[in-house]
Amino acid sequence: MALNPNYEQIGKAFTQQYYALFDNPATRGQLQALYNAEQSLMSFEGQQMQGAAKIMEKIASLTFQKIAHLITAVDCQPMFDGGILINVLGQLKTDDDPPQSFMQNFVLRPGGDSFYIQHDVFRLVLHNVAA
Amino acid sequence: MALNPNYEQIGKAFTQQYYALFDNPATRGQLQALYNAEQSLMSFEGQQMQGAAKIMEKIASLTFQKIAHLITAVDCQPMFDGGILINVLGQLKTDDDPPQSFMQNFVLRPGGDSFYIQHDVFRLVLHNVAA
Repeated sequence: MALNPNYEQIGKAFTQQYYALFDNPATRGQLQALYNAEQSLMSFEGQQMQGAAKIMEKIASLTFQKIAHLITAVDCQPMFDGGILINVLGQLKTDDDPPQSFMQNFVLRPGGDSFYIQHDVFRLVLHNVAA
Repeated sequence: MALNPNYEQIGKAFTQQYYALFDNPATRGQLQALYNAEQSLMSFEGQQMQGAAKIMEKIASLTFQKIAHLITAVDCQPMFDGGILINVLGQLKTDDDPPQSFMQNFVLRPGGDSFYIQHDVFRLVLHNVAA
């Protein structure tokens, strides 16, 4: 499969959609459809899980009343099997806490007439507590 | 190709080797052998380049007398085509400047009897100047 010429547009649109769904409690559950039931891998602050159900369980376990992802930069690269590599740098605002830098990395894989998240890695930018 | 069961060990060893070569001016040029001559893609602070020669040109253009990458966290995931996804969070010390947070993402691809870097994305964690 060739490089997808629209990688930048697809990657940026995906990122916006992902955080819009995440930040609204009424739509957060729809994220499940973006992951593959069995394959998708997530690393969340060093903890690994696989499959849409386990990933959604992790997301649902996060303790905040409200959350907002503010995107600073999105880097996209086309992959040689038709996938798209996305790197996000941003700030996370939860409840009334001060904004916290985060980085998140996605690998999107073509599936059906759309893309799903095959890899998802999330890290807060914290140097004194990260393992 | 199946998931590589040694993804964690390979990813962490690669990361250590990469920054050891980078941080020593006498060995920095050896990084070129880790990239594919034509294919490898790099995004450096939003600027994209392709191929080992152009990537090394970019690295050589960075202006510092001495540099040290201090690794805070390395997240590795096995990819479904035998590759390895690596996410690095760390601190960069250049010359006598204060440490600066950075994130770097690599996709390693099996090639010959080793791995090469197919994708490389680097970003300083700066929210006011990133594009």
